[in-house]
Amino acid sequence: MAASKLILCLNAGSSSVKFALFKYEPSTPLLLEGAINGITADKQFLDFKSYTPDGSTLESIKKQEIETPDHESAFKYFMHRLDSQQGDKRMLDSLADIYVACHRVVHGGANPRPLVIDDSVDHELEMLSDLAPLHNQRALDIVHSCRAHLKSAKNVAFFDSSFHMSILPPIYTFPISLDVQKRHQLRKYGFHGLSYAFIASESAKFLGVDGSDLNVIALHLGSGASACAIGSGKSVNTSMGLTPLEGLPGATRSGSIDPSLIFHYHSNSSRMSASLSKELKLTVAEEILNKESGWKSLTGTTDFGEITERALGQGDEVCKLAFDMFVNRVAMYVGQYWVALKGGASALVFAGGIGERGAELRKAVVDEVACLGFELDEERNKAAAGSDAVVVEISPEGARLKVLIVHTDEQKEMAKEVLDQDL
Amino acid sequence: MAASKLILCLNAGSSSVKFALFKYEPSTPLLLEGAINGITADKQFLDFKSYTPDGSTLESIKKQEIETPDHESAFKYFMHRLDSQQGDKRMLDSLADIYVACHRVVHGGANPRPLVIDDSVDHELEMLSDLAPLHNQRALDIVHSCRAHLKSAKNVAFFDSSFHMSILPPIYTFPISLDVQKRHQLRKYGFHGLSYAFIASESAKFLGVDGSDLNVIALHLGSGASACAIGSGKSVNTSMGLTPLEGLPGATRSGSIDPSLIFHYHSNSSRMSASLSKELKLTVAEEILNKESGWKSLTGTTDFGEITERALGQGDEVCKLAFDMFVNRVAMYVGQYWVALKGGASALVFAGGIGERGAELRKAVVDEVACLGFELDEERNKAAAGSDAVVVEISPEGARLKVLIVHTDEQKEMAKEVLDQDL
Repeated sequence: MAASKLILCLNAGSSSVKFALFKYEPSTPLLLEGAINGITADKQFLDFKSYTPDGSTLESIKKQEIETPDHESAFKYFMHRLDSQQGDKRMLDSLADIYVACHRVVHGGANPRPLVIDDSVDHELEMLSDLAPLHNQRALDIVHSCRAHLKSAKNVAFFDSSFHMSILPPIYTFPISLDVQKRHQLRKYGFHGLSYAFIASESAKFLGVDGSDLNVIALHLGSGASACAIGSGKSVNTSMGLTPLEGLPGATRSGSIDPSLIFHYHSNSSRMSASLSKELKLTVAEEILNKESGWKSLTGTTDFGEITERALGQGDEVCKLAFDMFVNRVAMYVGQYWVALKGGASALVFAGGIGERGAELRKAVVDEVACLGFELDEERNKAAAGSDAVVVEISPEGARLKVLIVHTDEQKEMAKEVLDQDL
Repeated sequence: MAASKLILCLNAGSSSVKFALFKYEPSTPLLLEGAINGITADKQFLDFKSYTPDGSTLESIKKQEIETPDHESAFKYFMHRLDSQQGDKRMLDSLADIYVACHRVVHGGANPRPLVIDDSVDHELEMLSDLAPLHNQRALDIVHSCRAHLKSAKNVAFFDSSFHMSILPPIYTFPISLDVQKRHQLRKYGFHGLSYAFIASESAKFLGVDGSDLNVIALHLGSGASACAIGSGKSVNTSMGLTPLEGLPGATRSGSIDPSLIFHYHSNSSRMSASLSKELKLTVAEEILNKESGWKSLTGTTDFGEITERALGQGDEVCKLAFDMFVNRVAMYVGQYWVALKGGASALVFAGGIGERGAELRKAVVDEVACLGFELDEERNKAAAGSDAVVVEISPEGARLKVLIVHTDEQKEMAKEVLDQDL
């Protein structure tokens, strides 16, 4: 087997590491992919799949229990596994074939593009961690491991904020002192950008329009949830702000709340958190709003599928409250972004774990925004779970306004950008 | 002149006290009205007008400089002035004719109705000040003066939050611990309720519909600004929250911002404010967001008319940023509330100092939401300044969706409610 150039994509979430290996070719064929979930929980599980060159499954592992209680050990476990893929019958000739290692970094400041990581960029990424102490550090740990272990690979940082750098000043500026905003780099950055970039290109393809003619309202709904108005293919507005806290509620995040609320929450909200290391520079307040809020704080579970089942199947009142609250907040963003796009949206797109799997949630949201002209084909909506197409239409045949599900893929987006931007 | 029952309405704002005296009769004829402005600023000014029984002006004072550097002295000055209105040729036989003294109180907790103030209610009002330390205290000081000086009057507290008690739990609940919400009475309360109640009844009259059939999006835009979706005559959603801080920016208020932002603003955001008395229980953070933000923090002035002139007339970039930012935030609420009313709104209503006087602001907002079907008659919009009608239509003749200006009047609303609710 001839040596081939490969792209490794790494995506560290709060309790998971996802990884994927692609060939460095225009169509970016997928060689293997997987995830280690449950990091920081009691048990960790590996999902893993590798593929033959024609795309059929070679090896498939589902929910295998492993012991990787932190991000570093998860990454090491994966590298070990990757190593074991080398050899005659495997896809991988040598780890040295990894030409580019892609890293999803949540907060990229105002960087509009990915950055090839050298020592100076590495330092810049460290600085950015001040803006997003909860979100960037894990990716940086993996960046450092990669730089140490994959000597021949070029490491590239992809930022979740980059896609939103097209947002205009009246929208990204906060109504607070301009001087302070400049000094502390405070502005709306927005996140889930890799996902929105993927959603944008796949939606445009599906709708048969040029990327630069795409006008859609996109919803990335998962443990972290956000909305984005995509106009002429670019982000016009998005619900997350300086950090991923603003906007929609999440599994453990409050989303937007009265900025005064936290001072009424806790007599010690303003003390430094004792349970987090000092370097994180987090106050108790930020910890509460990011880690102890959201639908888990209402219902006891982070699993929105379970909340939906308990709300609609078993009539659980608190779960119904959490479900209705989320539907309401999402619908309000659809209304806002309808106006942001001046009524020109041609589709409403659901993505993310809840967006892709939550048929009841999608139905409830579309019902709420029916006045804008969106409509669901209930059969298609229910049947969507069985489809492995990247884009699934769930509006009725011939509907003027489409409702779509996009199975978003941040790893694939990074690999595509490596090729498209010749990184 | 026969002794008559009178209604005195008092409305203490952050830097003003407004007052009005009505006859206790179903049509609530206005006898005198006025305001003392500039309290807490260097100079204070009195506006004052009294009327004959047929409604023509008896006495008119405009911007007379007086010395009342705090709310208490402003109230005393007014009482003294009122006292001097007594006698043969005046409207007022005796201060003892004041049958009801109405007080606008910003935060009324979950009280859906006005409360006649006895010692127990007085205590309840004191407790509510914990929820709104910045907003309730001035009204309470005046309540106490009235209870001491107008022995024969019944004192009634009208709450700005009452109108919004129709909002449903999925909307008023925050995505944070339910237990904490219950314990600390945290929820969306909403404010500007007296204004919205006035807007609702006047809009219904103007549109020729029953109050309970009214569906409009109302914007109270002043130094404090908010939006309200009024469905079937009731508040369905509103932009302010636990306190008046949430939602739209104001003259010195940030409005909704990333709840994390304040922890990046100031290394000491969490210290107790040194410039406020300890009883206010305010942190530096709350002070910054309520008093040192908003369009003043961007442009240096609280006067939105001046900002508009500098933005559109003189091409001042920072003023243009502040103007566009406000227009954008307002338009986003119109989009949200269009969805909240399921597309059933029949009018967009502008009120409040900026809403009533800002022709350019109204034009910019209506342009932004034109996709919903709202349209402006530019001549009518410009000519509206000359009208003293309570409701002025500024959409084109025969437009399906109306755009209205309502000259809102919180004092009048209180007087009307005294009669309507037999207080």
